Amino acid sequence: MNWTDEGALYSQISLFLREDLGRGDLSSQAVIARNTRARARFIAGEQMIVAGLEAAEEVFLTLDSQQQLEAFVSDGEQVEAGKLIARMVGFADVLLAGERVALNLIQHLSGVATLTNQFVRAVEETTAQIVDSREATPGLRMLERYALVLGGGSIGRFGLDDGVVITSNHCVMSGGIVAAVKTAKEKVGHLHKIGVQVSDESEVKHAVEQGADTLIFEDLSVDDARKLIEQARQLSDRVSIECGGQHLTVDSARAFAEAGADLLSISTLSCRAPQVTFKLSPF
Amino acid sequence: MNWTDEGALYSQISLFLREDLGRGDLSSQAVIARNTRARARFIAGEQMIVAGLEAAEEVFLTLDSQQQLEAFVSDGEQVEAGKLIARMVGFADVLLAGERVALNLIQHLSGVATLTNQFVRAVEETTAQIVDSREATPGLRMLERYALVLGGGSIGRFGLDDGVVITSNHCVMSGGIVAAVKTAKEKVGHLHKIGVQVSDESEVKHAVEQGADTLIFEDLSVDDARKLIEQARQLSDRVSIECGGQHLTVDSARAFAEAGADLLSISTLSCRAPQVTFKLSPF
Amino acid sequence: MNWTDEGALYSQISLFLREDLGRGDLSSQAVIARNTRARARFIAGEQMIVAGLEAAEEVFLTLDSQQQLEAFVSDGEQVEAGKLIARMVGFADVLLAGERVALNLIQHLSGVATLTNQFVRAVEETTAQIVDSREATPGLRMLERYALVLGGGSIGRFGLDDGVVITSNHCVMSGGIVAAVKTAKEKVGHLHKIGVQVSDESEVKHAVEQGADTLIFEDLSVDDARKLIEQARQLSDRVSIECGGQHLTVDSARAFAEAGADLLSISTLSCRAPQVTFKLSPF
Amino acid sequence: MNWTDEGALYSQISLFLREDLGRGDLSSQAVIARNTRARARFIAGEQMIVAGLEAAEEVFLTLDSQQQLEAFVSDGEQVEAGKLIARMVGFADVLLAGERVALNLIQHLSGVATLTNQFVRAVEETTAQIVDSREATPGLRMLERYALVLGGGSIGRFGLDDGVVITSNHCVMSGGIVAAVKTAKEKVGHLHKIGVQVSDESEVKHAVEQGADTLIFEDLSVDDARKLIEQARQLSDRVSIECGGQHLTVDSARAFAEAGADLLSISTLSCRAPQVTFKLSPF
Amino acid sequence: MNWTDEGALYSQISLFLREDLGRGDLSSQAVIARNTRARARFIAGEQMIVAGLEAAEEVFLTLDSQQQLEAFVSDGEQVEAGKLIARMVGFADVLLAGERVALNLIQHLSGVATLTNQFVRAVEETTAQIVDSREATPGLRMLERYALVLGGGSIGRFGLDDGVVITSNHCVMSGGIVAAVKTAKEKVGHLHKIGVQVSDESEVKHAVEQGADTLIFEDLSVDDARKLIEQARQLSDRVSIECGGQHLTVDSARAFAEAGADLLSISTLSCRAPQVTFKLSPF
Amino acid sequence: MNWTDEGALYSQISLFLREDLGRGDLSSQAVIARNTRARARFIAGEQMIVAGLEAAEEVFLTLDSQQQLEAFVSDGEQVEAGKLIARMVGFADVLLAGERVALNLIQHLSGVATLTNQFVRAVEETTAQIVDSREATPGLRMLERYALVLGGGSIGRFGLDDGVVITSNHCVMSGGIVAAVKTAKEKVGHLHKIGVQVSDESEVKHAVEQGADTLIFEDLSVDDARKLIEQARQLSDRVSIECGGQHLTVDSARAFAEAGADLLSISTLSCRAPQVTFKLSPF
Repeated sequence: MNWTDEGALYSQISLFLREDLGRGDLSSQAVIARNTRARARFIAGEQMIVAGLEAAEEVFLTLDSQQQLEAFVSDGEQVEAGKLIARMVGFADVLLAGERVALNLIQHLSGVATLTNQFVRAVEETTAQIVDSREATPGLRMLERYALVLGGGSIGRFGLDDGVVITSNHCVMSGGIVAAVKTAKEKVGHLHKIGVQVSDESEVKHAVEQGADTLIFEDLSVDDARKLIEQARQLSDRVSIECGGQHLTVDSARAFAEAGADLLSISTLSCRAPQVTFKLSPF
Repeated sequence: MNWTDEGALYSQISLFLREDLGRGDLSSQAVIARNTRARARFIAGEQMIVAGLEAAEEVFLTLDSQQQLEAFVSDGEQVEAGKLIARMVGFADVLLAGERVALNLIQHLSGVATLTNQFVRAVEETTAQIVDSREATPGLRMLERYALVLGGGSIGRFGLDDGVVITSNHCVMSGGIVAAVKTAKEKVGHLHKIGVQVSDESEVKHAVEQGADTLIFEDLSVDDARKLIEQARQLSDRVSIECGGQHLTVDSARAFAEAGADLLSISTLSCRAPQVTFKLSPF
Repeated sequence: MNWTDEGALYSQISLFLREDLGRGDLSSQAVIARNTRARARFIAGEQMIVAGLEAAEEVFLTLDSQQQLEAFVSDGEQVEAGKLIARMVGFADVLLAGERVALNLIQHLSGVATLTNQFVRAVEETTAQIVDSREATPGLRMLERYALVLGGGSIGRFGLDDGVVITSNHCVMSGGIVAAVKTAKEKVGHLHKIGVQVSDESEVKHAVEQGADTLIFEDLSVDDARKLIEQARQLSDRVSIECGGQHLTVDSARAFAEAGADLLSISTLSCRAPQVTFKLSPF
Repeated sequence: MNWTDEGALYSQISLFLREDLGRGDLSSQAVIARNTRARARFIAGEQMIVAGLEAAEEVFLTLDSQQQLEAFVSDGEQVEAGKLIARMVGFADVLLAGERVALNLIQHLSGVATLTNQFVRAVEETTAQIVDSREATPGLRMLERYALVLGGGSIGRFGLDDGVVITSNHCVMSGGIVAAVKTAKEKVGHLHKIGVQVSDESEVKHAVEQGADTLIFEDLSVDDARKLIEQARQLSDRVSIECGGQHLTVDSARAFAEAGADLLSISTLSCRAPQVTFKLSPF
Repeated sequence: MNWTDEGALYSQISLFLREDLGRGDLSSQAVIARNTRARARFIAGEQMIVAGLEAAEEVFLTLDSQQQLEAFVSDGEQVEAGKLIARMVGFADVLLAGERVALNLIQHLSGVATLTNQFVRAVEETTAQIVDSREATPGLRMLERYALVLGGGSIGRFGLDDGVVITSNHCVMSGGIVAAVKTAKEKVGHLHKIGVQVSDESEVKHAVEQGADTLIFEDLSVDDARKLIEQARQLSDRVSIECGGQHLTVDSARAFAEAGADLLSISTLSCRAPQVTFKLSPF
Repeated sequence: MNWTDEGALYSQISLFLREDLGRGDLSSQAVIARNTRARARFIAGEQMIVAGLEAAEEVFLTLDSQQQLEAFVSDGEQVEAGKLIARMVGFADVLLAGERVALNLIQHLSGVATLTNQFVRAVEETTAQIVDSREATPGLRMLERYALVLGGGSIGRFGLDDGVVITSNHCVMSGGIVAAVKTAKEKVGHLHKIGVQVSDESEVKHAVEQGADTLIFEDLSVDDARKLIEQARQLSDRVSIECGGQHLTVDSARAFAEAGADLLSISTLSCRAPQVTFKLSPF
């Protein structure tokens, strides 16, 4: 990831802080003497792929431009339970004000990276890539994509303006798959490829014949996917195959890969956030 | 919930749409004839407490002020797999543009409501209430709180400015629990109560003696919590008890309630999003 | 006051500057040679409690991050007429651009601090505290609260989301004071106390019986307030008493305090701004 | 005032509401049943020139686009104590949420209009006009100017980009009054006139000779002002005279007018807000 | 163009209005009686392709939601000098406030549409398409693209995130054209094609061999372009050819098309705005 | 230009960048290794007055606060084709991300400065000044005014709030020119002059008699303008004369000046952007 993402990645952090802080941290104001300095430690509560340490640093920098987080692992590394992953020195009230937002980000993003990595390891030694879908937490898509890449995933389609995908809903509304792909080929700019969601032999045939660049199998079982992939390969040696949906799990991922899928798109809506703790001590 | 929440609840929806739409829906622009009208149906893919139908409607209204969603269940109701939960009539390109954002919201919020409801049913016939914690998805706290209430939960503490909670980190940084609670009592406005995080007998004693209104047990086992609750009850008949943390699960919730906890605070970071599908058909 | 307030305190300063500057300072552009350096002095025109020097510095920093204000008194100190309260060295056009906004802030906030301090001195040696009401200048509430604290006041209720206060309008609309307080006790989160506006013996009785934490007497004379305070104290030794409204003046404040009020809430709508002048001289 | 002001006048009202409402009106949420309708009355507590009824209506419209305020007097009219100035019918929670912001605006703006009107009446039958200065409440300048016009005042100089005024600080920084006015005449666009702050005979002479359009006497006594006005009139029959500063009070205004001042500029920093009450009753 | 563009197209109009209006239209406030109604006519001053009538209507709607523009031609039509292209009825001060911004938009956008159309007519009966480049007026790219489509152009590449184009600067910085295209093929998502800027035979060869989807000739003469196009066609029958730069003019466009270019990308930086006048008359 | 403009001048640059970058520079992300450093050169492609180098620097600073542009000429200087006008050292991906926006700004603004300068040179040795009109590119007025000043032009009227100009549309709507000027004189603040658009002898007579400060001739031929200027000069020796409109070209400007015009107002809608190239090389 190059710099351009960082600007966008962290654009919402002040919003996240305002959401938690509102008119200010009543508890710190009541209890902590002004200008009290403290040390803070972030400790992994279980095994995970760490993601979000840079985001966490950004949280504290947004509160106080002097704060600096010292990370002992990089975003993307796997750690074991009990690992001291980062520490900071700063004003106690700043550390307390950012604590929860920073932890929520690290936990959520590490959850995404860890889940992605389970999929990536499941398809090791195959040619399949794990990519993101648009089934993502509202407001966090950029950060979740970043975590997915840390976990070993690849970039899929960021949003509706990032490539053309013709779904079954599009086909229903535009006179069927043949007409839909044909129209798309004519109207879409010369720098975009076309993906088409297909679910049976007839659709595979039509989509390939009309020049679809990628076939997308959504909610197919491994067996159904395998048959259609074979059919597609016979029709074209250039078409890419993407599989996704509820049958694609960490357990089934390898079977999809072995069935010939090039891309496996995963949802980040239901990732599980691992435990991370944050401990202060006087300076 | 009164009107004031609605303004705030939906303030980010245009952001969510921009996140997905970017410069516009390339696929619809390529494939769907302008002004094509369509019907849309939202169908539950599994059993769940529905939450987010109003948010979904807001998604489509943000795109086109004419759209209207007809809900067959209200936010907060439980539905079975296959249930038609809502339908719409509108322009196909608007329906397609809002589809994914609407589904992501319904799925995530229904996940929170469903999880909350599992906790609520687990403590039925006890006096314990399920409340939210600040362990929540960044940017979605208001919506998640709304979903939690739909699932039967109650309002806890929205953010750092919403009541005083003295954590162990505060105590470490301010000379111990006695000093912390004492200072807080002096400094805090006359309309706020004081919660104190405690983890052993000595802290319970000090907190109650200093006049804490609520004791918070974080990451304690049921047995440890029970002992401290008994101690607290002997010291005061006015103090409230809140339990939370990693030992509090759907399975253990009843035990915490029976141990005497008044409030059980749950995290919404790891909720599981149920399946919902969205199907278009020509008008 | 801890850091969190500063962010919020000064969030509107660029708005204040834009309000005065519009498309730029025509006069300085016409008359002042670019990069001319100057000294500036802020001089008190009369006796006052100074408030707003940090805000004034923020004004100049917003215009030019290099500027620095050297204060000879701290916000909150009392000064006499003629006192040099601060000085600066900087670019003449920056100093002229910020002059009026800085003075308007210092004058308004010093007015609030000075007024507050008159109340505070009036109740010296009593246990009464001077607190802010929501009768405040639109857009300046945070800054006015800050000035009030500098003048010796305490924090009351910041806004509608900061504690529950049941007014006579609430009672009229919800079936009377008994129903209103009762409902509030059930619905309000476990970290909030409940204030109730009362105006006669019957209301005092009902409010205390229902468990109100604070009784609020608005627009009562000292004598009427005294009688109701005595009644309330007989009913409960825990309830707080707040008095406010048009009969509460600098002259009557001590009588309210001696009548037993714990909190006297003052309006900042009509404070008088003391004179401050700003003089430039070449570097 | 034409339409363009209205957009600008009310641009900050949602900010004022957010300042008071924060995360929502806890008290109404606790006590008022959803969709309860109510009547509201605004009643003058003392004699005043009313200003801000339109702003108040805007407050309620911002909360709920259905609300409508029925005014019994127009902004700018004088009313006596006890006068019912406006009423509304609407949802109780909306009325309660907007009450304080609406009252704060009406009280502050009526204070400005009433003060202005005292000045205007003081100079009746003279040719002097009452104009605003830039000594105004930060964030409220547009609304205060609007109130000043309602009170009978005229438009002065809105901000630093609205006409050229060379103050003594400008002169000190640019080689004296002769150089300053000369440079200004050369550099300023052909649609702007030039005001110059002067304080003695020599400055009056220089400013008029260099072609100043307006002479501004700041903080002069009536007698000093009278002498310099006479001198200026002998030098030019085209120059305008503006007086302002701490010696200009409601009591002295007529003397300044009779001394020959064309414009009297008043500060709105210290206006006194009259009492207005807001009463709800069930529908 | 489908709906999604409209939201984005007009998002800056209130900014354009604020730029012109600042604190309000002094002239109308001085001269036009409030609520004066008027008729307005837009008249073409010369032959042109009209673009921006919808934008102009949006300008007036932004000022006053009641205003409506009645267009006698649609955006995209060609008109002759003297043609009445649209009219309105509304408040005189609103019409005067929006006049200049509306005209500036119509003139600029009609300039872009007219220029595009000159190119489109120049290549009639060839297979070449006229597309936009990123050489566009800052802040107006979306509107200029819209005008280009009205003039008969097609959509090229909206911005840096809309397709991959490897320029000579990219090649210099990444080890040459072979390495650059190769890396791009590996890293870019499966829905994006790859354009490569090439300027000689060797680069054409390398780019095609590495699988570039589009070759871009920037600043080549027609003759140089023709030779490289022939070479490219021999190497591949799938590659697209885009020409642009300073040699591509209305006069040379046909020659580029006949030389085999598929896409001609034009700059909108130097378009010439045709005359349009706006006349008011009393209602 | 003093500092105040810089803030305003560059306020939209992040918007311009977002317009081009969207979700990030796909090509650089694909091809350029992270942290690759490069040199960049800006080279004039033809003779021009340079404008926008500071804006360009601001573009790169917005992307990366470390970047610095070293300019070899100042904004406002004339350069010949081939001149190296500036260079930078920085990260390759930052340089590539800002390249197009920086060039678009330099080209557009240099176009305005160069055009202005052609007018300025055309009227050399006359007393006429070249000033801006409100016929300007939407969103770029401040930057275009800045470029116009660099080209030797003077400041005219920035927007509708910057001085009063009574056009023929105002006269039609307010009872004719006599009434319009008269009303304006009464209502306009004492720091504003009044310009009046006139087109024949009768209007000149009325406008001067009513005390107009500036007469504006729009769309008159040189001969018609000359006659009316002579008439105006006989009526008053104080009135300024401004000419503008479609007959005012670089070729006719001197004739207008010699006819006696004080101000020639030019449109920046149709300026021609000169060529500038941007070349990268490894560090």
